Amino acid sequence: MQSVRLGILGGGQLARMLMLAAHPLGIRCRAFDNDSRACAGQVGELHVGSFEDPDALARFADGVDVVTYEFENVPTSALEAMDRAGVPIRPKPIALATGQDRLREKLLFQKLGIAVAPFAGANTPIEAADAVERIGLPCVMKTRRLGYDGKGQVVLRTGGGETHDVRGAGEQGFAALGGVAVTVEAFVPFTREVSIIAVRGIDGAFDAWPLVQNRHEHGILRLSVAPAAESGGAAKTDGAAGIEQQARAAARAIMEHLDYVGVLAVEFFVTRDESGRETLLANEMAPRVHNSGHWTIEGATTSQFENHVRACVGLPLGQTGMRAGSPHAAMVNFIGDWPAPAKVLAVPGAHLHLYGKEPRPGRKVGHANIVAASEAELRERIGVIEALRG
Amino acid sequence: MQSVRLGILGGGQLARMLMLAAHPLGIRCRAFDNDSRACAGQVGELHVGSFEDPDALARFADGVDVVTYEFENVPTSALEAMDRAGVPIRPKPIALATGQDRLREKLLFQKLGIAVAPFAGANTPIEAADAVERIGLPCVMKTRRLGYDGKGQVVLRTGGGETHDVRGAGEQGFAALGGVAVTVEAFVPFTREVSIIAVRGIDGAFDAWPLVQNRHEHGILRLSVAPAAESGGAAKTDGAAGIEQQARAAARAIMEHLDYVGVLAVEFFVTRDESGRETLLANEMAPRVHNSGHWTIEGATTSQFENHVRACVGLPLGQTGMRAGSPHAAMVNFIGDWPAPAKVLAVPGAHLHLYGKEPRPGRKVGHANIVAASEAELRERIGVIEALRG
Repeated sequence: MQSVRLGILGGGQLARMLMLAAHPLGIRCRAFDNDSRACAGQVGELHVGSFEDPDALARFADGVDVVTYEFENVPTSALEAMDRAGVPIRPKPIALATGQDRLREKLLFQKLGIAVAPFAGANTPIEAADAVERIGLPCVMKTRRLGYDGKGQVVLRTGGGETHDVRGAGEQGFAALGGVAVTVEAFVPFTREVSIIAVRGIDGAFDAWPLVQNRHEHGILRLSVAPAAESGGAAKTDGAAGIEQQARAAARAIMEHLDYVGVLAVEFFVTRDESGRETLLANEMAPRVHNSGHWTIEGATTSQFENHVRACVGLPLGQTGMRAGSPHAAMVNFIGDWPAPAKVLAVPGAHLHLYGKEPRPGRKVGHANIVAASEAELRERIGVIEALRG
Repeated sequence: MQSVRLGILGGGQLARMLMLAAHPLGIRCRAFDNDSRACAGQVGELHVGSFEDPDALARFADGVDVVTYEFENVPTSALEAMDRAGVPIRPKPIALATGQDRLREKLLFQKLGIAVAPFAGANTPIEAADAVERIGLPCVMKTRRLGYDGKGQVVLRTGGGETHDVRGAGEQGFAALGGVAVTVEAFVPFTREVSIIAVRGIDGAFDAWPLVQNRHEHGILRLSVAPAAESGGAAKTDGAAGIEQQARAAARAIMEHLDYVGVLAVEFFVTRDESGRETLLANEMAPRVHNSGHWTIEGATTSQFENHVRACVGLPLGQTGMRAGSPHAAMVNFIGDWPAPAKVLAVPGAHLHLYGKEPRPGRKVGHANIVAASEAELRERIGVIEALRG
């Protein structure tokens, strides 16, 4: 047998974890990043160069059988270089073009019948004012491109002073975001946030991991729990199982529409009407492995990383269920710095994942995965790790 | 927090799997090998040089916090270079000196009260003849050093012709092995082979994985199953649980005697007396992670690789039990070449581990781990993988 070679555009922690999943399968990995300290370079081959440098990209593509990416904002120049080299890109560039543009993403959701909060796009101050007027306050204005971890967005609220002026709020928000193309989205009074991590094979096989419940702080994911909790106040038929089916159906529709290969994440807000019935509103999609799927490394039979790799190189997908014996799992993110490894590893059911990055405020530097036999046990262990995190 | 740096002498598949276990813990790894194609180099930093070159070894040791090794036959020159650099070696060199010398190993077992087959050492043709006369035919003559995978040994049997001459058989065997120092061991009519994989922390904490049952062919390990089967014909108290306790006690005695840190493997022959009672005879020890422990990657809560790394860098040990939900596990070795990955991965409970090596007859190039809910299910899956292996 010959080895397959997988190229990864981007050399951060997602590329690193993709490599760690690919190595045991005998797949040779090569990442491309503009930073020579990119942490994937510690665990596999790293090509350093500019994403605008066709020669560097051609060298990267030479000898690679298939290319994937670990971030949405891959420049078109890089995709074109892969095309010239005749190396297939998975997922397809159309998924990337959709995932890196909040408006296009929302329009796709709408087209596929996936519920979203009211939204509008705007390219000028006047369009921004129109959009805010139409959507109403409070609302969230986001740059169409290059936003992540809560960056590139402002919340516009009613309140004292100038913001009584709805159109003025739109113009000010537009200016605050730098005068680039934006979306305006109605502010959703959600009760919780969930995400679905799904995978689709080259043969069209579709599967998804159990629904994940997420907690963000300041726009950055802090905690993911799987499977998502049953909604306490909801009717039986509208519990987690109900919204899980909605989420799976949405992911499947997106993937089939895009003829998608690999892992896709879709984030949702969960809203509840007066009768307590839960409904999902799609927030955004990421055409790649996702932070809210990191728990799958020890929590699921096959991790999102391994299944993404398998899909990209045309191997059969692995099972996505919770691992037998540990029906509950969680991921606690380490932001800025990480606790003493000895303390994390002393917690039963805890697994440490550090990314080999230098500590820096606001930077994702690692996470702990936790598995448990019961929800109560899981909650207790999460509490211990969160206390270590400080 | 700062990263710990772990050096590994040797860059083969054991170093590779140690690295894959170390990376998620944020431990930076560097292997040393005399072959630039050493497969650990695909998954981490590799220094290429001669084990006799003090400068190359000094460069390797520079910036490394602790050093371990993946093979027994580390030259003394390499250990001395680590000493000069002030880098601690774990397990200690005395474990290496013992593990690389069959006679010393057997003498240690004997000293610690661990049962072994009758044995004797010999350095000359006359001593070899004496030894064979004393032990009797059939017996096994092995080089004291540099033997592995059935290499460096001959079986001496009674039979037609010259071998009626017991002393002559000893002299011939000695010559056949190249005239180097040997051991002569009584041929043990064993019913099965088992091994214990144990780990000891810097703080003296001891643990061992469930007893493993092994099948060798032509001296090379083909199959490991954990936990070892209950012995059908034996009395209740003498089943696998009984010999497991013997094996654990033996490993513990060795480790405490050597003030051992890291993973140790001890292989045993299982013999059965007329009453059906099973007894262990220690065959050999390996002061490192071991092929018969590869199943622990998916079969146990913590793998032998992760626990070896944890022990070496002073982290608390992880649990060594079978993973909840999959109480049975096995490892099928791929020798020479490997089956199509897609076919292996299509088997439920199967996990693929390829080493990134070129196919070559007799070479260990990968393995499949298999987990299952029952012994019957495990056996069926082993059968499927063995059929793929051809």
